[in-house]
Amino acid sequence: MNSWLIISEQSDFSIHNLPFGSFSTPYRDQRLGVAIGDYIVDLKACAQKGLLHQAPFSVHALEEPILNKWMGCGKDARVWLRHWLQYQLTHADSELHAHQDQLLLPIDSAHLHLPVEIGDYTDFYSSEDHARNVGKMFRDPENALLPNWKHLPVGYHGRASSIVVSGTNIHRPKVQFLPAGSDVPSFGPSKMIDFELEMAFIVAENTELGSHITTDQAEDAIFGVVIFNDWSARDKQRWEYVPLGPFLAKNFGSVASPWVVTLEALDAFRVAGPIQEPKVLPYLEYKQDMHFDVNLEVYLQPDRGAEELISKSNFKYMYWNMAQQLAHHTINGCNVRIGDMMASGTISGPTPDSFGSMLELAWGGKNPITLKDGSTRTSIQDGDTVIMRGYAEKNGIRIGFGECRSKILPSI
Amino acid sequence: MNSWLIISEQSDFSIHNLPFGSFSTPYRDQRLGVAIGDYIVDLKACAQKGLLHQAPFSVHALEEPILNKWMGCGKDARVWLRHWLQYQLTHADSELHAHQDQLLLPIDSAHLHLPVEIGDYTDFYSSEDHARNVGKMFRDPENALLPNWKHLPVGYHGRASSIVVSGTNIHRPKVQFLPAGSDVPSFGPSKMIDFELEMAFIVAENTELGSHITTDQAEDAIFGVVIFNDWSARDKQRWEYVPLGPFLAKNFGSVASPWVVTLEALDAFRVAGPIQEPKVLPYLEYKQDMHFDVNLEVYLQPDRGAEELISKSNFKYMYWNMAQQLAHHTINGCNVRIGDMMASGTISGPTPDSFGSMLELAWGGKNPITLKDGSTRTSIQDGDTVIMRGYAEKNGIRIGFGECRSKILPSI
Repeated sequence: MNSWLIISEQSDFSIHNLPFGSFSTPYRDQRLGVAIGDYIVDLKACAQKGLLHQAPFSVHALEEPILNKWMGCGKDARVWLRHWLQYQLTHADSELHAHQDQLLLPIDSAHLHLPVEIGDYTDFYSSEDHARNVGKMFRDPENALLPNWKHLPVGYHGRASSIVVSGTNIHRPKVQFLPAGSDVPSFGPSKMIDFELEMAFIVAENTELGSHITTDQAEDAIFGVVIFNDWSARDKQRWEYVPLGPFLAKNFGSVASPWVVTLEALDAFRVAGPIQEPKVLPYLEYKQDMHFDVNLEVYLQPDRGAEELISKSNFKYMYWNMAQQLAHHTINGCNVRIGDMMASGTISGPTPDSFGSMLELAWGGKNPITLKDGSTRTSIQDGDTVIMRGYAEKNGIRIGFGECRSKILPSI
Repeated sequence: MNSWLIISEQSDFSIHNLPFGSFSTPYRDQRLGVAIGDYIVDLKACAQKGLLHQAPFSVHALEEPILNKWMGCGKDARVWLRHWLQYQLTHADSELHAHQDQLLLPIDSAHLHLPVEIGDYTDFYSSEDHARNVGKMFRDPENALLPNWKHLPVGYHGRASSIVVSGTNIHRPKVQFLPAGSDVPSFGPSKMIDFELEMAFIVAENTELGSHITTDQAEDAIFGVVIFNDWSARDKQRWEYVPLGPFLAKNFGSVASPWVVTLEALDAFRVAGPIQEPKVLPYLEYKQDMHFDVNLEVYLQPDRGAEELISKSNFKYMYWNMAQQLAHHTINGCNVRIGDMMASGTISGPTPDSFGSMLELAWGGKNPITLKDGSTRTSIQDGDTVIMRGYAEKNGIRIGFGECRSKILPSI
């Protein structure tokens, strides 16, 4: 498929991708767009110009500032629009081509917004290597996984209000923590800020309380996926998390990449997941491959320094996949809503260079990372920017996620 | 203050209360109202009839189906409307009296809705007796409280989507749990459904990420309080909650009473809280009394049986108060939004008849409760209805919360 638009072979936003986002410019109010090469297709302008008059759905959903209504139009609508965009972008006689001056704009000229109103946010803990690493460091190296871990996708509810879009910088939180060797807590700026490399999917279906989404049904209930940095304060986490889980250690800011890559775009990159042994309960069994071969990278950029690759992981390293997560989340009748976000938990691979957090990369502070400027890190310093990127490549097809970028600013 | 309306002395909804709710009838679309005696004041009708033309706020906020916009109008607006309603209800020459046939309707004729759109929901764990009881049963009776408990209000994020209004019945959830003596989990209807007697407050302020609400500021940021039943599946909870906290054990349905009692109405019932020793960190210190003497009752009604009082507790038994909870929640910069709901955690008193959950009342199954029909309970059975009520009384003034009612239906 060749477009009349010039798209670099290394672009994240090839014609096979077509991810959705929300943008504004000084001349365009906040609205939906699809990224293509170095441009954005302005969906509101397409709708208002009448280009979508043959669409089998209400185009008003594409005139909204965020994705929620559009996600509720369902998979058939998504597939129709995907094919329409691919046709328009590959045919020189298309209306999109004829009116490109009004319907396309350079991606660099746009301000990107969080594209969804998130109802509830859930964070899972579904990478086996991550869970083992944490278990080895903090519990028993011989029994690193807790007894429930291979029987269900462990997860917990997180904070939706503090999820922000890539480019939002976060002030180092002030927290209560227990200094080493003390039994009296202190208060002050966290001394152990960490990133967590995650992927998050967005739910595209409303369900009734009491109903359940099976692993087979899960696919149609998932709109797409973003990269997600779950900023964490490890000193706070250690002090607060027993017995009810992480709270203030995780809710001071979580960062999502702005372009939602749909499951339709990811379809070509399915791979088999790990063999799950012990066998899972029937409600967690699944048929179609629901793991995805997406390369993930974490870069650290010190203040006034150059960015430096510090981890290479992959979305395929998940033990529990998205269908299993959604089936588990709803098996008790918990209802979901369009816009709910569910993150994977830190995604670590089997080798030390593929760990998805500083906690693991520096092994709990024992093996500090040395950067090219000679400085070392066991946690994130003020002025450090963490940039996460992801892309999938196969048979000459490349799709990418753009980036998830956030800097830690000094405490207020 | 005497009203021209006949209000029983035992009514929850005296002229000193004036709680807000959301209702509809076959002839009135969903809208806001204030409960008074056996009636509801239709706020939308009042606004549309022009009765509020002198209000120092936009009355459109009172024409919404839910409270969120009204809560955003701030405390001064709430106080103005409270005084206006008290004037109108006590003066025989008032416009409300003149048009009572259009502006008041019997409370029994209305269908009540959840009155807020909840952004994020947080559950605390702030009753010392409850935390001690759980610690004694499941951990070390000599060290029942965990080390962090007296230093911070332990809390966790919960699920907003599955919070429903009183009168909503809940199907027994199917869950994965570990049968006693087994190391292989089973799946099926939970065998240990429990209620939790809680109070929940609703946030009336939007804050920016990175900012903080102090204990002094907390009062103005809280709109009001409801009774809250946090249905729990104890078998599921035990299997899933280590290390990240309760998840599916708590998100299959939580029930809120429909009438939000404002802090202005509760003002007369302030009492001093417990002496907090060890001393709390400065950000958790507070000046004005923020505990409230509200009697709480739990009734159990077996299928086709009569309701029976099984617990008498009190909101004043909290160790951590609402101002401390909100200050702690935001001390790290976590932003809050109008409509956020924050629950107290189970409220247990010091004596066995004041425990706020079946887990404690039946002491982990060791002391089953015997009902008047001769049946016993260590957990909630199918067909059991749990009804929670609350009221405050002092110097001839009485305000109540109405009820929080929900039945457990058989598993689907």
